[in-house]
Amino acid sequence: MQASDSFPSSSFSKQPIGIFDSGIGGLTALRKLAELLPNEDLIYLGDTARVPYGNRSAETIINYSKECIHFLLKHSVKQILVACNTASAVALETMEQLSTVPVTGVIKPAVNVVIREKYQRVGVIGTRTTIQSRSYETEIQKQNNQLLPVSVYTQACPLFVPLIEEGWEKHPVARQIAEEYLSTIKKNNLEALILGCTHYPFLTEVIHEVLPGVRLIDSGAEAAILVADQTQSSLPQNTARTIECYVTDLTPTFTDLAHQFLGLAPKVLHQIEL
Amino acid sequence: MQASDSFPSSSFSKQPIGIFDSGIGGLTALRKLAELLPNEDLIYLGDTARVPYGNRSAETIINYSKECIHFLLKHSVKQILVACNTASAVALETMEQLSTVPVTGVIKPAVNVVIREKYQRVGVIGTRTTIQSRSYETEIQKQNNQLLPVSVYTQACPLFVPLIEEGWEKHPVARQIAEEYLSTIKKNNLEALILGCTHYPFLTEVIHEVLPGVRLIDSGAEAAILVADQTQSSLPQNTARTIECYVTDLTPTFTDLAHQFLGLAPKVLHQIEL
Repeated sequence: MQASDSFPSSSFSKQPIGIFDSGIGGLTALRKLAELLPNEDLIYLGDTARVPYGNRSAETIINYSKECIHFLLKHSVKQILVACNTASAVALETMEQLSTVPVTGVIKPAVNVVIREKYQRVGVIGTRTTIQSRSYETEIQKQNNQLLPVSVYTQACPLFVPLIEEGWEKHPVARQIAEEYLSTIKKNNLEALILGCTHYPFLTEVIHEVLPGVRLIDSGAEAAILVADQTQSSLPQNTARTIECYVTDLTPTFTDLAHQFLGLAPKVLHQIEL
Repeated sequence: MQASDSFPSSSFSKQPIGIFDSGIGGLTALRKLAELLPNEDLIYLGDTARVPYGNRSAETIINYSKECIHFLLKHSVKQILVACNTASAVALETMEQLSTVPVTGVIKPAVNVVIREKYQRVGVIGTRTTIQSRSYETEIQKQNNQLLPVSVYTQACPLFVPLIEEGWEKHPVARQIAEEYLSTIKKNNLEALILGCTHYPFLTEVIHEVLPGVRLIDSGAEAAILVADQTQSSLPQNTARTIECYVTDLTPTFTDLAHQFLGLAPKVLHQIEL
């Protein structure tokens, strides 16, 4: 079906927004987006059969990300939010080239905050692959107008994700692991810390205890705000909407965790093959 | 080529033994097998692009395991050791049906020890999927001659694998996590504990501290002993042999971990697609 000039097609605005994550962490970004855009249809894809991406090679992450973008495009999304920091760090360019609709990663929106607030001593925590990619440093350098130098201190925290998925974010072990991971960057008198993984907001309390007074920047929430800004008022109020969740693997544990991450049990949940 | 009665073919005995694991944990079993069979060619496949299997559904683990068995069969292995407890727990029957050569999992050999030593109070620790499968209980019941009742106490320990892969097996946090996981089964006056995951032998020291006097049964090592028994003396001594390692994803961290698990840097290491 082609849109005609005399009959403006509204099909584009009615298309859903796609959210892609390696697993369930991105449900926190979906939740934020659902709050900000109460009328928009949303489609979430979590690659739970191959999660976590955080310790894999860039090559493998790029391959997996391409398959996930293809899936969302087949579902006629009008734009895509990549909620996975690792995929945003190493595969964003590939996804942008591949996609026929706008793709927003989580790195740029988090860095926007750093630049806007003129933070000069910034920490970044994330998975091993995200940190090794140096994507946050590169993006800060790109956005910075050079008037204010920004020092960036990074730390990979590979145990944070399994800790949160085990539901131990308030366990004394969480505090001990956070103390250990953050001990080096703590010495740098940080003004802000980018939570470079959509799981990490669950550790906000513990991180605040270890780094009191440091502004925590939630990369997933910032990306949701940016996407919402780009989409706002495209639909009339009170439009009924659907939120569909797709996963590549479904386990008994998944639904519990999804509930915790999304704040409600997903109503439409499908298991699919990519 | 067909073997003739008058000319006994030795090609079968010269074929390699295949070892399959979801990741690198199975390298501990490869190491044991290499010690026990110094002349045999060995091929290892670690599905590192999709590790860990331990929290995934049985359906997904079965699909992945089938692909891995196909890969080893294509490399003309004469038998297969499945070093992954999770795959052994939920996919062994499928792999046996699929395979044209004998397949040995890690559950039966570990249970052999329980029955042989007449242990009556046995603990089992493993991934969430291994424990939920109740495979160890089923195998103990199957092998037990009913003269001695065996009580089995199980506990999933999802944080042990990431902890070991982070190299924190001697960190105070490891002791604290082990205390927490083992606190319930500790009350049952265990005689033996099956380490139902090929990563867990790295936590032997910590587990011994938490459960002093309990015999730890290394499922991967026991499986290697069984496979070696089945293979012994098929080749003349002093035969030169090769050990080849294949992985589905290769990261900078992998080689370090492989060195730690195997006790030496793998000489022939290939990255492949399944």
